[in-house]
Formats: sequence, C-alpha cells, structure tokens
Amino acid sequence: MHDTIASLGEFGLIRELFLPLQFGEGLGEFDCGIGDDAAVLTIPRTQQLLTTVDTLVEGIHFGSDADPFLLGQKALRVNLADIAAMGGVPHWYLLSLALPASTPLFWARRLAEGLAEDGQRYRLSLVGGDTVASRSGSITITITLFGLVGQQRAVLRSTAQLGDRLLVSGSIGDSALGLACRLGRIVSPQQQDDIDYLTRRHDLPEPRLELAQMLQDSSLLHAAIDISDGLIADLGHLCNQSRLGAQLHVDHIPLSAAAKRLYERDGSALEPLLWSGGEDYELLLSVSPGALEMVGHAAQRCQVTVTDIGVVVQDPGIAYYRAGQPMAPLSHTGWTHF
Amino acid sequence: MHDTIASLGEFGLIRELFLPLQFGEGLGEFDCGIGDDAAVLTIPRTQQLLTTVDTLVEGIHFGSDADPFLLGQKALRVNLADIAAMGGVPHWYLLSLALPASTPLFWARRLAEGLAEDGQRYRLSLVGGDTVASRSGSITITITLFGLVGQQRAVLRSTAQLGDRLLVSGSIGDSALGLACRLGRIVSPQQQDDIDYLTRRHDLPEPRLELAQMLQDSSLLHAAIDISDGLIADLGHLCNQSRLGAQLHVDHIPLSAAAKRLYERDGSALEPLLWSGGEDYELLLSVSPGALEMVGHAAQRCQVTVTDIGVVVQDPGIAYYRAGQPMAPLSHTGWTHF
Repeated sequence: MHDTIASLGEFGLIRELFLPLQFGEGLGEFDCGIGDDAAVLTIPRTQQLLTTVDTLVEGIHFGSDADPFLLGQKALRVNLADIAAMGGVPHWYLLSLALPASTPLFWARRLAEGLAEDGQRYRLSLVGGDTVASRSGSITITITLFGLVGQQRAVLRSTAQLGDRLLVSGSIGDSALGLACRLGRIVSPQQQDDIDYLTRRHDLPEPRLELAQMLQDSSLLHAAIDISDGLIADLGHLCNQSRLGAQLHVDHIPLSAAAKRLYERDGSALEPLLWSGGEDYELLLSVSPGALEMVGHAAQRCQVTVTDIGVVVQDPGIAYYRAGQPMAPLSHTGWTHF
Repeated sequence: MHDTIASLGEFGLIRELFLPLQFGEGLGEFDCGIGDDAAVLTIPRTQQLLTTVDTLVEGIHFGSDADPFLLGQKALRVNLADIAAMGGVPHWYLLSLALPASTPLFWARRLAEGLAEDGQRYRLSLVGGDTVASRSGSITITITLFGLVGQQRAVLRSTAQLGDRLLVSGSIGDSALGLACRLGRIVSPQQQDDIDYLTRRHDLPEPRLELAQMLQDSSLLHAAIDISDGLIADLGHLCNQSRLGAQLHVDHIPLSAAAKRLYERDGSALEPLLWSGGEDYELLLSVSPGALEMVGHAAQRCQVTVTDIGVVVQDPGIAYYRAGQPMAPLSHTGWTHF
C-alpha cells in the first residue's frame, strides 16, 4: 500500500516537496517567494519581464503512465522554449498543480525531483504556486515562467524582414514520431534505439536557450518563434504576424537519423506528421542573409545544428518547394486543441 | 443544438473571445501581449513585480452548473485579493484554460464577458495564456496575476509586530454559509434574500484593493494576509510567519446580518464554518494600536468596515477568547485540499 499525497496534506506537500525548489541568491533575485500571498520579484532597471504560461493535461498532453520526473521537466521546458524564442533568460516560475487526492506520494516526489534537476540545470527558482485537488481523477500541471530580456531587445514574431533566411534548430518531427510510436500508430520495424530516441525527444524537449541568447546578444535575430504547433503552423504564425510570406523548401527540413530511417520506409505519408505534428520545441529563426555565417559559428559553439529551410518573401502564405520545384500546399497544417 | 468551442477552434477562441480582453495603453504598459511566445512587460524602475497564481477546478471549486460569467470574475478576484494583501496595484494577467471540446460556445463567451467586465472595473489587461483541451470533461481555470508595488514596500505576512491590533475587513463566514446553503448542507428557513446574499458572497468575492492601497500608501500596515483558507488558518499563517501569536476574540468576528440570523438559530455548531470555512477573500491586517484611528478613517472613505478582533502576542499559536474569557481552541481550523 503506497502513501498518497493526502497523507502529507496540502501544506505538507508544499513544505516537503516544493519549498526545496526555491533557490536562494544568485539564481535571480526575489524578495519574497513561496509562503506569502504573492511573490515579489525585483526586475533590474535595464531589463523587461518576459512571462508565459503552459498547461499540460493528463489524457491530452500525457498518458496516466507518464514518468512524473520527465513530466515536471517537460512542463518547465515547453515554457523555456518560449523564453528562448524571445531571446530572454529564464529566472523564476510558479507551479499550479491540480491532483486527485489519491495521487501516490512517490508520484509527486518524482515530479518535484524532475523540477529540482531542471531548476539546477537552467538556474530557475520556484517562487510560488497553487496546489489544489482535482475531483475528476485527472492531473493538470500549469507552469508560469518568468524571464528577463534587455529593454526593447525582445525578439518578436512580427519583425521578420523581406529576404530573411529561415533557419530551424535541431531536427523536426522527432517528437510527433515518438508519440506515434508510443501510441502504436506507427508500427516500427526499426531498432529499439530509434524508438527510444524518438520517444525521448517527445518526452523531453531541448529548449535552445544558449543559442537564442548568443544570437540575440549579437543582434542577429530579426524574428523567432518556438515550434510547438508544428513547423508549418508556426512558420505561418511568423509570416502572418510579420505581414509577409515564405518559400519553404520541404526537402531541406532537417530530420534526425532515426526519423530519416522511418521516412525512407513510409515516404510522403509521414510528411504531415513530420512537418505539422508539433511539440518540436525547436526554434524557427528569421535572419538576414548576411548573418548566416555568424549564425553558423554561434550554432557550432552551442553544438546545435541550424538548417536553412527557406526565405521570407512578399507574397503572404507559404509556398512549398521540393527539389527546387513548386509543389501543392499541405492540407493538414498543424496541431489545434479543438 | 448549441455550438461548441470546437466550432470556433483554438485560434478562433483566442481571436474572438480573448484578444478583446487585452487593453491598450493606460492600463499598465506592455510591449507585447497575446500572440507572441511570451508577454513583454515593462516594470517601472521604482516598482517591484508581484505575481500570484490560482487554479479553479470544476467539481472542487465550482459545480458544473456555475455561471461562467461569475466564474471568470471569481478566478480573477481570488488573485486580486492576494495582490491587495501585498499592498499592490494589479495590472496584467495570463489565462490558462483547460476545456472539454464539447464546452458550449456560449459558456466560453460568458466567461470572457465576465473577465471583460472585471478587466474594466479593476483596470486589468490580459497579456497571454494557454487554451488546451481537457479529456476528462472537467474544466480548469488558472489565472496568473501581475501587480506592482513600490520598491521594498510590499506588505508581507511575516512582519507583524508584538502588540499589533488584528483587524478584518468586511464580514467573515458568508462565503462558506452561501456554499453550504447551495449544497443543501444548511436547510435554511431564512428569507430568500439572505440566501441570495450569502451565495453571492461565495460566488463573487470583493477584493479590498482600494483599502489596502490606501493603508499601504500611508505606511499603516505591519503585515497582511488575505483570508482564503479561513480566518483561523490564515491568522495562524500570519502568526507563524511572524514568529508571534495572537489573542483572538471570537465574539468580535464580524458577521453579516444574514450570517447573524443563521448563527442565532444554529449557534456554536455553525462556528467552524464561519471561522474556518474559507473563501472569504477579506483582508486580515496587523496594525500598530496607534494607527487604529487612521485605519478607521481610511476604511470609512473606502466604505469598507474594519473590525478589531484581537492582538498580536509573544506566545505562539492562537489563544481564543469569548466575552473576554479564555475558551478551548477549535479542532477544525481551516480548509485544506488533501
């Protein structure tokens, strides 16, 4: 018989599991964190505040058998990817948890351990939150993340420029393939290594904070967005908000070795999943053609690949190219919740 | 057949219902709100940032028949009460909604209308959020609220002083009685007016922002907390965090006329509900005895009653008094989620 969170109680949970996630000095200044009515944060006068919120819902974003250690980290990292896309530095977060009273205590403990590890990795402090019961038996994890960026230095979606090259970090489609493997929607004859790699990419995004900050420090970014709804949809957001369009070279979209092996087998049937599956949490960057070489150097220093997949053009919408030739647009262009 | 939110889609919902909740200049400056990866907020250099998050869960905090107009307002106001208790001025909020795809569109529209009305009333702008599906059929509303307070001027829980008088705003217990009436746990022979008053107090808290700001501007507050877990529990939090204790005169705890009529009938059986039922969202203030008169004047100007219910003492814990005589402590001392 395992203990449930009810054995510790709401305030016991906060004291034992969450208070240790609040780091002291050196990790972003705050005057008052967990335990008062609100957190009090000091924003240096040269900086603006960035804030973003994401909710993960059991049965939608994760299954009931998901590892809570990874779940805590994913909840943080989907927000970290947003801060990266603004060119900012993350510092603090609020955690709001809705949990059934029957949730095993070890589940909550593992969640906190995952948060603790990523808190150290990314130098983040928990500064408050809310812990409530959920009657429906389903878990909801909401993280509000706070970062800083120099005054008027945030990298927006709406400031891409005509002629900009479009770059993506890392590889695209792994997360959607990983989820499809897990759900049995792709029966894979692949090596277990490939499946492990792809599901890992789904479970644990890699926010490209270092790359984004380095590029932002050198003023190399005209615009950026993190790829959460799928490459096609998020490229659409960037273009629409910049009142421009894009030529997208679909055969330039970077795939991992594992994704390539699946793609070689299943071919174009896999393309909607790869390009529009979502949850990549890679960066899509819009940069001046003259900056490409410097961006490449920065990426090398961060050990992140960046790949040129197209160009910003005047005509609105996305024009698709394969092997240099125009092709028909995709019908399924991105994840939407309803 | 009513339309559901699925007919509008995730981005349609954001565009039609939530974008209008983002106000422009004059309501707290922000450089970038809904529609980018993160909101960009400008914090004046004389100010610190206050932030707090609260989650309302269907089946725990509200029934499935709750009016979404009031629900949106309550979700904002429970957070506003936190900002009030810090002596701050609220400015911005993030809204994270988990909704079943079958949620009626008019439900989401009413929620947005409630938020719009309170946004105007309290001069708040929505600056971002997350809208996700919930598979469980249950609705979760999470609001992260942002306020400003002068540098080093936040009113904490931990700074009550020995000899301070303890004051509460408004009346205590109405919300818990209102909920009990609604759930049929109190069969009330009262006039419908009383029941309406009490359930209204449950549905729509009155954050005491004006009073708190006026008192904070005059530096009259040593410490403050908002009463969400129940008067006894929150008095306990204030005392513990200040490493002091309190003498509480239970017969001084202010009751509304409606609550008094129920109390006269049911007597002391009702006391746990009144004093520990929670969700009052009134303020508990710790002030110097010499400041009582000025606090009274400020309260009068705000048309809020404040009532002296006790004194801060050296001995830890709460000592209960009735008619000036010591009495036994209560066993049920506050709402806890698990």
